Amino acid sequence: MSDIKKFAVLVAGGQGTRMGMALPKQFLPLNGKPILAWSIMAFTQAFPDINIILVLPPAYYSYAQMVLTALPEPIDVTLVSGGETRFHSVKNGLSAIEEEGIVFVHDGARPLITTDLLHRCYNDAVTYGSAIPAIPVAESMRIVDGDHSKPVNRDHMRVIQTPQTFKTELILPAFQQEYTPAFTDEATVAEAYGITVHLCLGEKQNIKVTTPEDMVVAEAFMKAAGN
Amino acid sequence: MSDIKKFAVLVAGGQGTRMGMALPKQFLPLNGKPILAWSIMAFTQAFPDINIILVLPPAYYSYAQMVLTALPEPIDVTLVSGGETRFHSVKNGLSAIEEEGIVFVHDGARPLITTDLLHRCYNDAVTYGSAIPAIPVAESMRIVDGDHSKPVNRDHMRVIQTPQTFKTELILPAFQQEYTPAFTDEATVAEAYGITVHLCLGEKQNIKVTTPEDMVVAEAFMKAAGN
Repeated sequence: MSDIKKFAVLVAGGQGTRMGMALPKQFLPLNGKPILAWSIMAFTQAFPDINIILVLPPAYYSYAQMVLTALPEPIDVTLVSGGETRFHSVKNGLSAIEEEGIVFVHDGARPLITTDLLHRCYNDAVTYGSAIPAIPVAESMRIVDGDHSKPVNRDHMRVIQTPQTFKTELILPAFQQEYTPAFTDEATVAEAYGITVHLCLGEKQNIKVTTPEDMVVAEAFMKAAGN
Repeated sequence: MSDIKKFAVLVAGGQGTRMGMALPKQFLPLNGKPILAWSIMAFTQAFPDINIILVLPPAYYSYAQMVLTALPEPIDVTLVSGGETRFHSVKNGLSAIEEEGIVFVHDGARPLITTDLLHRCYNDAVTYGSAIPAIPVAESMRIVDGDHSKPVNRDHMRVIQTPQTFKTELILPAFQQEYTPAFTDEATVAEAYGITVHLCLGEKQNIKVTTPEDMVVAEAFMKAAGN
């Protein structure tokens, strides 16, 4: 690749309560390895020189060791403590970055991210300053308001994925803003700071594993990919 | 169940061009049976007395025979010719109904519909006049407008599925309206006729098989369900 520094902030702070299990979802085994291990491997395969920053609650640090030993080769990882919200967790992760470059903020529970998509996010972020993977909506959608609902034009809707990718000199200052609940992802933080975010084409299989159904789907995609 | 008549209009008119194959997607084999056969079986299992109306282009009638021979038991099916748009296809299917009752309009390419969901749609349609299965959105969403986009509150968004279920005395007259391109599903047709549609909870696994990725997911769900 290039001399530009690359950082991945992998957010693995969720409590995984929706899985109905004690083990947080990003540590669940998928095809023999923890989900988070697959996410890390995707980044190191796409960019051998990338710096991995893992954000997770201190209570899960021992799980992180389990994840790291599942990797085919040992890698250096910066462990950072998660915060109260996603914004605070990502802010903590970004604060470990001391050089300029491109940073990918990624859900630890999206293990099916491909080299193709990572390279597309990287190239677009170099060109446009940011790259937010988005996919079209295949189904009809409605907006509900109490007991009523109305159709929305799905042609204009996009499902947003991660890695939300940025030049560090844009996103690090954006995260110095005061938190508001409108900060639901990194794109919304960037926009509140005046940055126009660039959408790039995501991938349907780049799902976030949140429910038992998602585990079924993730395993199927993993097998179809030959892993 | 009850003495109320039940009709399923199964729409299988798509050309399946997104699959990149000659065989339309609803006829592709899934775990040994055509997708459309699974859809039909779901209805006959949930309601042994249901009347099945299959809407498809006449060119596919021979495929329909293949589907029917894949069923565990022979059933009577009314074959109806598909129209220019989904609206016209569904209108043709509804025109085969000559008694009052509950009608389910279902995508033939949604083979994972469960008895639970079919019963919920039925009961809600009996109570409210209509039942449109809808599921919450798990991911961030944005609305795009040219080169720009803005976040939407996903808490208010729903993904709409089928079977869109109605009392026949409501939906048959609604389909006598003149077609407009705003008729993207049956709910929009009902609303244009002044009917307030009732949303019920859908199921995540009730996917529409449109792409090769969907085939992978559908096979995984089917195996997880023990089929």
